[in-house]
Amino acid sequence: MNASNLNLEERIRNTALMNKITDDERASSLIKDGMTVAVSGFTPSGYPKAVPVALANRVKKENVKMKLNLFSGASLGPEIDKAWTEAGIISKRLPYQTTDVLRSKINAGEVEFLDMHLSHTPQYIHYDMLPKIDIAIVEAAGITEEGNIIPTMGLGNTPTFIKKADQVIVEVNLSKPLGYEGMADIYITENPPDRKPIPILKPDERIGTPFIPCGKDKIKAIVITNEQDKTRDLTGVNHVSERISENILSFLRSEVKACRLPSNLLPIQSGVGSVANAVLYGLCESEFKNLTCYTEVVQDSMLDLLRCGKAAVASATAVSPSPAGLKRFEEEIDFFKDKIILRPQEISNNPEVIRRLGVIAINTAMEADIYGNVNSTHLMGSKIMNGIGGSGDFARNAAISIFSTESIAKNGVISSIVPMVSHVDHTEHDVMVIVTEQGYADLRGLSPKERALKIINHCAHPDFRPMLLDYYHKALSLEWKHTPHILSEAFSWHIRYMQTGNMK
Amino acid sequence: MNASNLNLEERIRNTALMNKITDDERASSLIKDGMTVAVSGFTPSGYPKAVPVALANRVKKENVKMKLNLFSGASLGPEIDKAWTEAGIISKRLPYQTTDVLRSKINAGEVEFLDMHLSHTPQYIHYDMLPKIDIAIVEAAGITEEGNIIPTMGLGNTPTFIKKADQVIVEVNLSKPLGYEGMADIYITENPPDRKPIPILKPDERIGTPFIPCGKDKIKAIVITNEQDKTRDLTGVNHVSERISENILSFLRSEVKACRLPSNLLPIQSGVGSVANAVLYGLCESEFKNLTCYTEVVQDSMLDLLRCGKAAVASATAVSPSPAGLKRFEEEIDFFKDKIILRPQEISNNPEVIRRLGVIAINTAMEADIYGNVNSTHLMGSKIMNGIGGSGDFARNAAISIFSTESIAKNGVISSIVPMVSHVDHTEHDVMVIVTEQGYADLRGLSPKERALKIINHCAHPDFRPMLLDYYHKALSLEWKHTPHILSEAFSWHIRYMQTGNMK
Repeated sequence: MNASNLNLEERIRNTALMNKITDDERASSLIKDGMTVAVSGFTPSGYPKAVPVALANRVKKENVKMKLNLFSGASLGPEIDKAWTEAGIISKRLPYQTTDVLRSKINAGEVEFLDMHLSHTPQYIHYDMLPKIDIAIVEAAGITEEGNIIPTMGLGNTPTFIKKADQVIVEVNLSKPLGYEGMADIYITENPPDRKPIPILKPDERIGTPFIPCGKDKIKAIVITNEQDKTRDLTGVNHVSERISENILSFLRSEVKACRLPSNLLPIQSGVGSVANAVLYGLCESEFKNLTCYTEVVQDSMLDLLRCGKAAVASATAVSPSPAGLKRFEEEIDFFKDKIILRPQEISNNPEVIRRLGVIAINTAMEADIYGNVNSTHLMGSKIMNGIGGSGDFARNAAISIFSTESIAKNGVISSIVPMVSHVDHTEHDVMVIVTEQGYADLRGLSPKERALKIINHCAHPDFRPMLLDYYHKALSLEWKHTPHILSEAFSWHIRYMQTGNMK
Repeated sequence: MNASNLNLEERIRNTALMNKITDDERASSLIKDGMTVAVSGFTPSGYPKAVPVALANRVKKENVKMKLNLFSGASLGPEIDKAWTEAGIISKRLPYQTTDVLRSKINAGEVEFLDMHLSHTPQYIHYDMLPKIDIAIVEAAGITEEGNIIPTMGLGNTPTFIKKADQVIVEVNLSKPLGYEGMADIYITENPPDRKPIPILKPDERIGTPFIPCGKDKIKAIVITNEQDKTRDLTGVNHVSERISENILSFLRSEVKACRLPSNLLPIQSGVGSVANAVLYGLCESEFKNLTCYTEVVQDSMLDLLRCGKAAVASATAVSPSPAGLKRFEEEIDFFKDKIILRPQEISNNPEVIRRLGVIAINTAMEADIYGNVNSTHLMGSKIMNGIGGSGDFARNAAISIFSTESIAKNGVISSIVPMVSHVDHTEHDVMVIVTEQGYADLRGLSPKERALKIINHCAHPDFRPMLLDYYHKALSLEWKHTPHILSEAFSWHIRYMQTGNMK
């Protein structure tokens, strides 16, 4: 931390607001049983870190009755999802999460979880379709003279939460450089019938304000913090993810060759994880240049894409590098300041903009079936992992919608290509290309039967191909041959796995 | 037909084009084996009627080898889908169909069918992701001096087809009044990265030209026809559809009361069929006024909504009343001329516009499951009925997305509410309200378990409620309780029906 970080007046630019500075415990006392609490942040970055912990500690210590609805942009750090789950105070959670202990409670039926398209959440809230937000707790790099919020690195739904909340608690985080100021581009849509076109024509266009409108009166407490975000460790690129990445790049090259994509591609959206990293690193080392990015989250590999000059600007709703990558990013924040645009997730994930820009969407499947339906969320049809996140916003509206998965899981006892997925998040209508380390299946223009053969032969692991072909041909011998299925056997692989630990 | 209809110069406004007038048989000889043929029209209206029949007759008579890809806007009249199926000349068909004999061939595995979101088809074609269109056959009320097309009553993908086709055959239909001129509003999007915002801010805005750009050179043959569209008979409103309609209106009233909808609602999109008719007739007789419509198809009941003055304008991609309704509509065409805007389906079904306007989408489910997933297309998981059509374009992007179905089918041997749908077209993420004649389930903000109880108790038929509750509670007793399912029993109702003819 340098000296200027300590200068509170640089952070809180209105002297009247200085009187609202309090400690985390007192701020947390604004939160009452039964309330709906909304927090800043998206994919563990930019979330509040002090007040939530103080609340959890108080509840545990004093054994007070406390059940809250918890709304966020996407996943949160352990200071909220883990601490609040352990304190037993989450009644309902939406729209996404990635925390082990919370996931366990959801799957145990102890926490109600609502898994939503990330572009839907702000709409539902603007339309008053969800419980009224009582309190928003938001992290800030600073507060303007007018009482508006200068966000840090994870925007998510913060503008919507602040607009709709009765009260706002601000955590001014001195550990975050003021260099974040200017990275955000805040644009809030009107409700119909007054909504206007979102005037983004290129990923690098700024259309809003660099601060989140709030106003002094709404701010009920300010807490000074100094904690770094607990972002996820870098997901390593391994041999399999490299192969998947090569197959994706090979597909993109063939699209350029066929003149279906320009030589600098179209704006890239890339999910999180090792395949996403491998694809972006692959692009760094490729012949492609002048790339553009219109995505949800900027991770280490996308920072490298900006560093190596292959892309000039990345539009996202959050920056969420690994802990080491975050340190380096904040040291280099002056370099990145005009290269990253952070938008509310209503805009980063907006179908209007995604379809207009013609995004190339690269997302992860948990399993896919032989007809191209994708399960992104539920293990064996019932156990939720994280949530659909923004994958549906991008996949449905992309110029090209790619889903990747390793062809097998758990050392080969699970096939990621199955006769029928046990839960559908992306239907056959929304999946254009499926990629595994085995190859890719370009499904565009294919009927279900044509898709089946392509997916089995190009994407399934050789160990499972005969079994898949067997299912397919047996189903094809029945009466209805448009999407041949044998309902009594469609889930037999999943059932066998649950009974024996092996799909074979 | 009045005298002016006979005046060809009024219809074909360029004397050079007069030389291209030929008969249907000669025009059909432009179509060669292996070609991709695209035709005008949407939901049996506005499709070409003479050349397709001439081709089918020639193929049957001369036994020539002929296999074609057939692209359309949506469903077509018997002159194409029936005649071509019977002549055995359809190799691949997209994106939607409703013809018995074609459906049989698709389900027999003899015709490859690609069931697409209707807003995706024009994109796929603009992006060259589908086979190149060799010939477009389009119906017209007339041809302008510049060789541009004045369409009749079903627009669909015609502008895209004409733009991308090598050759165009025009059927000038003298039975269609020239009063259609001016109803169409043709706007074609650029491909990314040059696509602009679609400047529709209200359903009644016109943003394009009243003709479809084509040009004289592309027109290879003109055929004069005189056949009326074979639209579908009016689907009667019965006691059950009236009950469903009442439940939908009751839901909408409660939304207005809760200030979540303005008193004149938001633009209405309504699918086709008896429930859609009942809802719109219900609105005619209701207290609602100054309604707006942004939909796909204008049927008899929406014409009545315009007649009774409850709505001033309807935006759609086709007018498709019953045969009797069509006769009356064309007699009154001067009344309707400025009250109906016909847009390409890329615009009528565009997510950008649908989300901006905040459409109230009312579509039909074939079956829904206890967690809110909807099957719109496949009987017993394998047999396709029609296709997803535009329901996904509207449901995903609507302000309020409603799916309706009668709670039972086939006199009660089938429950439309099942443990797990046998095919997913609309996921739990996209379905806000499910309505049956039993009541409605408002699913917004509910976790899967909360949804299950609401759907079972408010929408399922009383005969099936105990069985559904039994499945749910049994599933809930297993390990994973986020979306409780028993994979070995999830399709047991469907399997029982296939084995015994009864789900019970």
